[in-house]
Amino acid sequence: MPPAVPPPVDPVALTADLIRCASVTPAEGGALQLLEGLLTEAGFTCTRVDRDGIANLYARWGAKGANRSFGFNGHTDVVPVGDAGAWTHDPFGGEIVDGVLWGRGATDMKSGVAAFAAAAVDFVRDTPPDGAVILAITGDEEGDAEHGTVALLDWMAAQGERMTHCLVGEPTCPNVMGEMMKIGRRGSMTCWFTATGVQGHSAYPHRAKNPMSALVKLLARLEENPLDEGTDHFDASTLAITTIDCGNPATNVIPAKGRATVNIRFNDAHSGASLTDWLHHHAQAVQAETGVQIDLRLQISGESFLTPPGTFSDLIARAVTAETGVTPAYSTSGGTSDARFVKNHCPVVEFGLVGKTMHQVDERIEVAQIQQLKAIYTRILTEYFA
Amino acid sequence: MPPAVPPPVDPVALTADLIRCASVTPAEGGALQLLEGLLTEAGFTCTRVDRDGIANLYARWGAKGANRSFGFNGHTDVVPVGDAGAWTHDPFGGEIVDGVLWGRGATDMKSGVAAFAAAAVDFVRDTPPDGAVILAITGDEEGDAEHGTVALLDWMAAQGERMTHCLVGEPTCPNVMGEMMKIGRRGSMTCWFTATGVQGHSAYPHRAKNPMSALVKLLARLEENPLDEGTDHFDASTLAITTIDCGNPATNVIPAKGRATVNIRFNDAHSGASLTDWLHHHAQAVQAETGVQIDLRLQISGESFLTPPGTFSDLIARAVTAETGVTPAYSTSGGTSDARFVKNHCPVVEFGLVGKTMHQVDERIEVAQIQQLKAIYTRILTEYFA
Repeated sequence: MPPAVPPPVDPVALTADLIRCASVTPAEGGALQLLEGLLTEAGFTCTRVDRDGIANLYARWGAKGANRSFGFNGHTDVVPVGDAGAWTHDPFGGEIVDGVLWGRGATDMKSGVAAFAAAAVDFVRDTPPDGAVILAITGDEEGDAEHGTVALLDWMAAQGERMTHCLVGEPTCPNVMGEMMKIGRRGSMTCWFTATGVQGHSAYPHRAKNPMSALVKLLARLEENPLDEGTDHFDASTLAITTIDCGNPATNVIPAKGRATVNIRFNDAHSGASLTDWLHHHAQAVQAETGVQIDLRLQISGESFLTPPGTFSDLIARAVTAETGVTPAYSTSGGTSDARFVKNHCPVVEFGLVGKTMHQVDERIEVAQIQQLKAIYTRILTEYFA
Repeated sequence: MPPAVPPPVDPVALTADLIRCASVTPAEGGALQLLEGLLTEAGFTCTRVDRDGIANLYARWGAKGANRSFGFNGHTDVVPVGDAGAWTHDPFGGEIVDGVLWGRGATDMKSGVAAFAAAAVDFVRDTPPDGAVILAITGDEEGDAEHGTVALLDWMAAQGERMTHCLVGEPTCPNVMGEMMKIGRRGSMTCWFTATGVQGHSAYPHRAKNPMSALVKLLARLEENPLDEGTDHFDASTLAITTIDCGNPATNVIPAKGRATVNIRFNDAHSGASLTDWLHHHAQAVQAETGVQIDLRLQISGESFLTPPGTFSDLIARAVTAETGVTPAYSTSGGTSDARFVKNHCPVVEFGLVGKTMHQVDERIEVAQIQQLKAIYTRILTEYFA
């Protein structure tokens, strides 16, 4: 009698199990442990790449130096529950009601991790590929992301571990399953301005140096001309003033100090460095004109990047269309994701399910989407190694 | 034997006595009571015109319906001590050391009140004029000024009491005794803007309506073009942004609401009404362009006013020059004073001593200046009734 063939991994049950692990960043919550058990049993070599209290899991099936090694990247950490009393279902209950799975991480992105883990386990067992399948799963995507995917990639580089292509399983579809994949992301940077002038009486502005006037002048210039009109694969870059603050309650006093913050999302027409120059240039001009000292603090959260449309993205798109009947748009919209780190390692594309309720109270997903996602990921693996 | 001639009133001793009355607004502190005793004894008809817990004193020598009635206006209330421990001398001690009188109100303006009270008492006794001398002294100039000089003027109008000309005894000289008198003041108004937009994600500014962008646009326009270049007797009007506030800590969020405050000091090219129109016009334009709702709250603290240079101001100037050797400039600079109320009643000019330490810790004045001020006020009375 041949050995019993294990049944396929159910990605819905696996998602529900992961939701029951309360893994709010930076807590591991048992989520990576659960995956490690499943993957080890399926023949993956698992390594916990923990750093600074953050848990990360690296799992490889196949040889280390394989010519082709397909990687999945994702995260098991989730954002906080928020108003717990406002949830219809236990955010860590993993309840399924009428074909909908409820809980924190149901869309972002325990379902994505479960779908690619289930696809990978079944794929390597059913049709062992000539190459490697790698899962790089982090517990720090929703937090500072300092010791998450970055730590995994650092460790991989040090160990000679390599993915030739990578798919990030973040939710990418705005409304309809299959309608969008991401082939790049805009960069993101934040600039905190501090303007220091000379306090004075409102009746004598010429004797004071008004930091608020300097900030208004500077911000008006930054907003005056759009950074660009968009590029081949990107929307136009944007700049948003997120706050201006002073806190001076006296209407007869010109204050000495004020602050403002702008957040810039930029496409491949710019870089963190070029925008840093641009911000300094304008700040210095206003400083010279007004005599108000303007200091800048800058944080570049991520550079823009693009995996140009080609063989790899087309393979993903074909698999999506085959399973959903929908042709995915090649998008570069949205916030940041760990793809911004992976792109330094290998070509990276993002595809996942509909992200409508991510980060919200009552986060939930139709279980059919999770099944579909596993099928898409399986088809991608099949075609990749065909 | 003729009755003994009383000695002249010493304005320095009187100032010191007034300083010893702790009359921080709205406290009367015994200051008006002291003056009422002195003036009653000198033949003035005194009436306490108290309103809403504020004490005011009206004193008239001479007939009510006199053709010529010269008025002095001033206040005995003072601003708080501030950091009591930082004072070199008791702020309510009225100490004189090396020719300098120390204490809260030494310059603003118990010295001014003492000087005109002393001048008036001696003048009516020594050279009884063909007319009336009026002292309208309030206990609410440093506060809201709602129930101070306004109450006195209301009461006067109701009683048929009238000054033909009025001198306000506020400190008017920046550095040197005699160098400046005031023949008008700029108006003052404050506008509080509230901008209400639509909150959103920093990555998608086009889906939000950023109240901070709208405020920056609006404030940049208000500051772009000066209101005027000055008029015959006035400096240019000024606008000062005194604060901008939002309080949004999240760099990935465009806030829903922001606030800004501007303070305008305006000359006789404008009025509170014309500037109200101007502010509404610009706010509505920015609202139309941005879709951000901009609400305005306005407070007109005082309209600009001018007592055009002429016989009255020249009389004051001549008296100042005769006593000090300095020719006073006819100025309209500075903040507001109760002259803004008096100007609705009769021509008004302001002259007083050097105001350098007003409102400060260690407020003080050279006693020689108080003596000089009494001499100037006496000369003004003499020439006025000559």
